[in-house]
This record gives sequence, structure tokens and C-alpha cells, in this order.
Amino acid sequence: MGLSAIKEDLLASARHVEGFLRTSLHGRGVPERLLTSMEYSLLAGGKRLRPVLCLKWAKLCGLDMEKAMPFAASLELIHTYSLIHDDLPAMDNDDLRRGKPSNHKQFDEATAILAGDGLLTEAFSLMAQAAESLPAERVVCAMKAVAAAAGAGGMVGGQALDMEYTGKAGISLDQLQTMHAMKTGALIRVACLSGAMLAGSKASVLEKASTYGAAIGVAFQIADDILDVVGNEQEIGKPVGSDEQAGKNTYPSLVGLAESHRLARLYVDRAVECLEEYSTSEADFLRQLAFYIVERVS
Amino acid sequence: MGLSAIKEDLLASARHVEGFLRTSLHGRGVPERLLTSMEYSLLAGGKRLRPVLCLKWAKLCGLDMEKAMPFAASLELIHTYSLIHDDLPAMDNDDLRRGKPSNHKQFDEATAILAGDGLLTEAFSLMAQAAESLPAERVVCAMKAVAAAAGAGGMVGGQALDMEYTGKAGISLDQLQTMHAMKTGALIRVACLSGAMLAGSKASVLEKASTYGAAIGVAFQIADDILDVVGNEQEIGKPVGSDEQAGKNTYPSLVGLAESHRLARLYVDRAVECLEEYSTSEADFLRQLAFYIVERVS
Repeated sequence: MGLSAIKEDLLASARHVEGFLRTSLHGRGVPERLLTSMEYSLLAGGKRLRPVLCLKWAKLCGLDMEKAMPFAASLELIHTYSLIHDDLPAMDNDDLRRGKPSNHKQFDEATAILAGDGLLTEAFSLMAQAAESLPAERVVCAMKAVAAAAGAGGMVGGQALDMEYTGKAGISLDQLQTMHAMKTGALIRVACLSGAMLAGSKASVLEKASTYGAAIGVAFQIADDILDVVGNEQEIGKPVGSDEQAGKNTYPSLVGLAESHRLARLYVDRAVECLEEYSTSEADFLRQLAFYIVERVS
Repeated sequence: MGLSAIKEDLLASARHVEGFLRTSLHGRGVPERLLTSMEYSLLAGGKRLRPVLCLKWAKLCGLDMEKAMPFAASLELIHTYSLIHDDLPAMDNDDLRRGKPSNHKQFDEATAILAGDGLLTEAFSLMAQAAESLPAERVVCAMKAVAAAAGAGGMVGGQALDMEYTGKAGISLDQLQTMHAMKTGALIRVACLSGAMLAGSKASVLEKASTYGAAIGVAFQIADDILDVVGNEQEIGKPVGSDEQAGKNTYPSLVGLAESHRLARLYVDRAVECLEEYSTSEADFLRQLAFYIVERVS
């Protein structure tokens, strides 16, 4: 599988997830304006990386992908809510998201806060829904893992640290890595892990899914930081150099561009190692996905 | 059980819940400032009504209360997060909560948003934790019910409607009731329902728990609206008449004080009817609790 094949597979998988997402909030009695606001952000495109990782790991571990779909899709609801809240004026104050007005710009702040709250809560509703076709024990374990990864000791805590560190000098690489591992890494890691959990995998496999996810999470963050320096506005959906302007601590700002590239490749290698024993098309996809992360910035 | 006995039992139950809440967020890797902010609001007092309702219904249906505790406590995390977000400048813009500075006043807006997000997510972590001592099927069902009640078709949606209706003339009693049923009723209802669910109760009992919870939820809201007109500032923790000043639609503003009192009593009767078959001390508590709601405003 080459670079164009992985892109195609990623697109096809994203479309598959989107088919599910499109009706995922319907029939729940959501007031109209709130629903419009939630779907404005949820259906605004994106690679759907987290659901796809969950589905591919579930399949790799022997589970029918359709059974994992509600759970996988819930990860996109969580990712979307985090973007809406991060964009708020009191947080990163971003007017644009994926080239369109951010949620609070398109609607208003109150609606954006509630849209985020709603997406986060509906995510757990979707996860619970997965128990209709999977053993409840597996689903509860995976829900617990997602809550830990997305919560105050994970994604939410990472955003809190990011706010604390922004504009502050003297942040160490170690602090930066912990912050990113929580803010973006934890959800990517748990996407892989939960897929394996839903399939009922044994501990050694869960370990591999977790390590793979954590490693590509780091590689992905470094690549994003690099793109903010060397990318073009259309590709990244926001002005180039916006991290630097916002006083964000990034890999390039802390260790330079060359070392950032080296680190990204190191983590990709670590991710690929986790798949050594596997030779299915899903394993191939997950391997190529890891390579793709660094290829798009080199 | 008289008025003073119910007050005492309510206080003792609240203290029991607080004992659990006090350490519920520890050992989760939450950054210090964020944890301080979350606990500032979570441990600021309150009647702990939702956890107590869950515990009492669980016990009434034959479950050891300790097994339901993590789940019951999670409802207080959800309630607390909703208060923090509702107080934000973009929402109700309240500077005071329970006589103390609201979360965003004590910390800052970003921290308050994240503290709310963190509490909501950790709530689901606590719920999943309940599966350590209860069948996973029951826990998942109860989690699904809580997510639906707290989500965009429940509490979050109710707050969205409240924002939409505030300052608007011509809101009907029907619209007001739907809004309240979502905003405050749904979580109170599901507190009772989830307690019965965790105990593995049959459908007819779940129905009673749900009806009882919905009815006291309405009675409670009417009583709150009445207190905002006739209560004193110390008792309600915010200035008297603040609803009217904020242009809020309330029961007294829509149907008058006398009719509000009559409606409150009607819903209390409906709640008490659900307990007809029960004669345990928990049933007595739940009956007296319903009466207590209207007694405190008469």
C-alpha cells in the first residue's frame, strides 16, 4: 500500500464514519438550533482519524467493524466538542476552524458551549449503544478508558496545561510532551486501545494497540507543529505561524525543525514495531498511516 | 418521619455522599489548578439531592447502597458541571453561587469551562467504576439513561431552550414545562431511575422510579421559582427576584403564585402515589422528601 492508496483508504473510511455520524444525533429530542450548531461542527469534514483508528484496530483484532461503529463514532463527537470549546474566546479565541467560522462565530458563545457539552454527553450515549451488539463488560471497560483519556487527567487536563504554558518561557521538552500526551495523545491512544478492547483482545495485544496509538499521537502532534511553520494556509485551515503568534510552545520552537523531523520519524518507527506480527490489510493500513504522518511534512 | 427527621436524614445522606466525593477526583492525574477549580465547586455544599435519590431508590429496590455509591456520586459531578457552565458570562452571567463567587469569578473563564468539561467526563468514569461491583449490563443501561437525560435532548437542551426563551414574551406553560423537564427534571428523574436500574428492578418498578423522579423534579422547580419571589437571600444563596430581573420565565410569572402552589402540591401527590406499595424506611424517606419540597415554600 503506497501513499495514494493509504489516502484513498483513509478517505473511504472517513466517508463510512460520516455516513454514521450524519444521523447519529437524530431522534434524540435535541432542540433545533442546538442540533444545527452541533452538526455544523460535527459534519464540517476532517480526517475522522480517531474513529478510523478504532475501527481498524477492532477489525485487526477480529471484530466486525459495524459492531464497533457507534463506539468509534463517539470519539469524533468528543474530538469535535474539544475543538469547539478550545476555539472559544476565553480559550484559544480562534475565529476559524477548517476554513469556516468557528462554532461561536457562526452561532454564539452560549450555543457553542452547549453544543460542546451536548456532543460530549451524546458521545457516551453512543458508546453505551455499542452494548446492543457487544458484551457489556467490554463496552464498560472501553468507556472507562475513554473517560480517563478524555477527562481532567487526559485531554481536558492537557488543554488546561496548554493554557497555563502559553506565553510562558522556560517550558521544558518534558513538560511539552506531557501536555501533548494529555491534550491530543490520550484520545488517539484510546481510539486504538478501545478498538482492541471491544474485540475482546488479551492484555499483550491491548498493550500494542496502546503503544501504537501513543506513538502516532506524538508523531502527529510534531507534524502539526511543523506544518504550522512550513505548511500553507489552505492545507492547515488556519493562518501559517498562528501557533508562534499565540505564544504557543511547539516542537520547532523548543528543539528546532531538524530535531522535530527526527523525533517524528522515531515515533513512527516505534508505532510500526507494534504491528510486526500482523500481516492483514488492516495492519498494512495502520503501518502506512504511521508513515503517512511524517511523509506529509517531509 | 416528620419534617425535622427528614431534614436530618437528608443531611446525613448528604454527608455520606460528600465523604465519597471528597476523594473522588484524586489519583487521576488532574493538573493542580484544574483540580482545585473542580473541587471548589464540587465540594461547595448543596443538598446532594441527586446522589441521595439514586442511593435511596437503589436501597428501596434491594441493592446495597455502597455498590451504587460511585454511580450516585457521578450525578453530583454532572449537576456541578451544569451549574459552572450555566453561571458563565455567555450564559446566565451569575457572579455568585451558593453565596460564594461562581467558578469563573474565583478562577477564570477558561478554567471554569474546563472544570465543567472535566467534571462531566469524570462523571462517566465514576459510573463505569460501578461495574467493578455490579453486573456490567445494568451499569451500561443506567449510563445510557444518564447520558440521554444529561445530554442535548435533556439537561443541555433544556439550558439551550432557557437561553432562547429568556427575555421572550409569549412563552406558554407547555413550553416552560418542557424546558424545565429537560433542564432540571431529566437529571432528577434519572437519579431515581438509575438507582432502580442498578438494583436490577423489573420494568414496572423502573416506571415508578421514573414517574416519582419526574414528579418531584417538577415540584422542585416550581418551589425554586416560588422561593425566588418570596424567599430570603441567605436561604437561596442569590439575590431575591433575580429570575425576574434576568427576564426568566417562571411558574409565578406565568400562572401566578397561588396556582404555582397548587401545581407543586399536585406533583407531590403524584410522586407519593408511586410509593404506595412500599413500607420500608427508604420509602418513608422518599415520601417525606416529596412533602418537604412543598413544605419549605408554604
